[in-house]
Amino acid sequence: MAVGLQDFPSIPEIKGVKIGFAEAGIKKPNKKDVVIFELCEGAAVVGVFTQNAFCAAPVRVCQKHLLGSDIRYLLINTGNANAGTGKQGMENALLTCQEFARSAGVAAESVLPFSTGVIGEPLPVAKILAALPTALSSLEGDNWKAAGLGIMTTDTLPKGSVRTFEFDGRRYTVAGISKGAGMIRPNMATMLGYVFSDIALDKALLQQMLSSVVNKSFNRITVDSDTSTNDSCIAVATGAAGNDLVTDINSPLAQAFLAAFTEVMQELAHAIVRDGEGATKFVTVEVKGAKLESDATKVAFEVAHSPLVKTALFASDPNWGRILAVVGRAGVEALDVDKVQLHINGFEIARDGCRSPDYLEEHGQEAMASEEIQIQIDLGAGDSSDTVWTTDFSHEYVTINADYRT
Amino acid sequence: MAVGLQDFPSIPEIKGVKIGFAEAGIKKPNKKDVVIFELCEGAAVVGVFTQNAFCAAPVRVCQKHLLGSDIRYLLINTGNANAGTGKQGMENALLTCQEFARSAGVAAESVLPFSTGVIGEPLPVAKILAALPTALSSLEGDNWKAAGLGIMTTDTLPKGSVRTFEFDGRRYTVAGISKGAGMIRPNMATMLGYVFSDIALDKALLQQMLSSVVNKSFNRITVDSDTSTNDSCIAVATGAAGNDLVTDINSPLAQAFLAAFTEVMQELAHAIVRDGEGATKFVTVEVKGAKLESDATKVAFEVAHSPLVKTALFASDPNWGRILAVVGRAGVEALDVDKVQLHINGFEIARDGCRSPDYLEEHGQEAMASEEIQIQIDLGAGDSSDTVWTTDFSHEYVTINADYRT
Repeated sequence: MAVGLQDFPSIPEIKGVKIGFAEAGIKKPNKKDVVIFELCEGAAVVGVFTQNAFCAAPVRVCQKHLLGSDIRYLLINTGNANAGTGKQGMENALLTCQEFARSAGVAAESVLPFSTGVIGEPLPVAKILAALPTALSSLEGDNWKAAGLGIMTTDTLPKGSVRTFEFDGRRYTVAGISKGAGMIRPNMATMLGYVFSDIALDKALLQQMLSSVVNKSFNRITVDSDTSTNDSCIAVATGAAGNDLVTDINSPLAQAFLAAFTEVMQELAHAIVRDGEGATKFVTVEVKGAKLESDATKVAFEVAHSPLVKTALFASDPNWGRILAVVGRAGVEALDVDKVQLHINGFEIARDGCRSPDYLEEHGQEAMASEEIQIQIDLGAGDSSDTVWTTDFSHEYVTINADYRT
Repeated sequence: MAVGLQDFPSIPEIKGVKIGFAEAGIKKPNKKDVVIFELCEGAAVVGVFTQNAFCAAPVRVCQKHLLGSDIRYLLINTGNANAGTGKQGMENALLTCQEFARSAGVAAESVLPFSTGVIGEPLPVAKILAALPTALSSLEGDNWKAAGLGIMTTDTLPKGSVRTFEFDGRRYTVAGISKGAGMIRPNMATMLGYVFSDIALDKALLQQMLSSVVNKSFNRITVDSDTSTNDSCIAVATGAAGNDLVTDINSPLAQAFLAAFTEVMQELAHAIVRDGEGATKFVTVEVKGAKLESDATKVAFEVAHSPLVKTALFASDPNWGRILAVVGRAGVEALDVDKVQLHINGFEIARDGCRSPDYLEEHGQEAMASEEIQIQIDLGAGDSSDTVWTTDFSHEYVTINADYRT
């Protein structure tokens, strides 16, 4: 029951990227559960990862391998997160890289491993290794939708996004896929996002752009406030478009790329929310008029996490008092509640900290009936703002998460 | 569907306290929705209140009136919270006190008002005032259960607790009532708790005891992480027992009272969790081995708030990986995940940060099948600890909160 999620887009080949997949039977038979990306030599590859201290073994291996310079493969499995698995988990992640690297004829350090699924159970290494020849033999430039399907867990639909732009007579593509529906409150990245471009762009600059854009996309979405152990977001610039290497963020080409990259990252992040577990609403929480940006971020996330706000959204109930109650407990220093204003889908609901004199219950009901909800909170204290995207909280969420493992 | 909640206890009269009630029809007909407590002259009355910046008008009036010395009445209504109501809300709270004080023949500042119910709608002052003569005429010493019923909103059962103790040949009673089932993550107090004793005890000492005990009772429970706008907890020592005024916290009588007072406060706090909205489990989250007590508190609350942990508890699913994932994201500085241990109802689940070598799925299932769940987390970093009590997250919670207003 995804909310307003578009069909998987038609993504063209990106020079320097090939995609393979296989059915390893890790958790379920007849499901694509292994995906590989093959990258051309010299591609700039950067990543951001979960801040969860219980980060998964593959996350640690990725961080180590990214210190080297030549990443040639991304190897992704679903059905098992290889997190909370201790030393054996690290050994399994490394072993998978080694065996895969041997088949592909590259160094083990050229492989980035990713896992997603149940936490705490041993990685079924043998099943994954047995599926790798099939994955390698299926490498093609246009397997994007298969990759989107192959990285899904509780997602109901594959998620992709693409932008193209021209610059100086040359055509560039930025495209990516993402997955995630529960345990979604990324901190530095989501579980999982991959964005590719054929642009030639300096690795350090790409890292800088990724770290910045992630704070306006994946790091601003939340489904259930639970930060995953496996969140990973990878950006790749293959350089196959043939342009001169971009090194200056202020150059027109860098800015054109950044615009397309931001759109792709936001679309992929929003897709995760739209397909959030049990989602029936897509909710934008915008907080403005804050003294500090951190105040705006804090209030937006507290509203987005409140079970009472989320159940009211599910019920399409204009129970706006719950929103004010969250604003009041969010921990904003010296908050003057008498200056707080609240709009929902353009209707003024509260002014000067209490119900607007013009408010009519019909307005609230009309605003809340939509599948797309825009909550705007003005703290009346300054010029800072931030925006977070989330879902409502439905029976379906409880059903999905009460049944997930069994 | 309250979990293991005892029947309302038989509470004896406490000298110096009389209780009245009425049906004002604030939200529903034929429901006790106004409760008053009459206190003898000279009773020590202290309180702690919500830290929510959007605190309700009655909370502000209470705080003001408690600065005076002679509180004679507590006046409580349900069905309307008088919060998020701005200036008009303050005027309504004060007006109610004034009119009630006139009928009772005391000063308006001798009345403490409390409101609980829907946020953001005007207090129906006329209905409340019309019910006050009935409430005043019903004043008796043994109306405890009626009071427990009269302060309920989404609670399914009234909540009371009583302890008696003897000291130096004199018998003392400590008793109280509480309410609350949703919007429960008190910060300084819960919505609502009232504890009474006939002991003669210095007001400043009583305040000190209340502030301390609330941090081991009401401030350590959470149903849904939402701090109410109206949380209030009041302690009254009438002095009618006739003992010499207790002023020294180290005196044997002070310690005997403190022990009984703590038990009553904890029982009332636990009763709120046991009757938490949609609760099917009563869950104790104990975190030990922390370097700082604040680390233990933080981890315990994060586990207690996690929707993924709460839905796994509802499903009786030993999905313990979700608990480790929360420990990892809780923000404990320099957490060494390889030292983390986890027990559930006595079974060792995780050791050294991953699944215990002795763990069997049957153990996990047996542990999670119980209605009473004890989650013990050892961070292996020090000697500090803290305990939080909470519930699971069920379909019923969504139903209750999606339907509450309509």
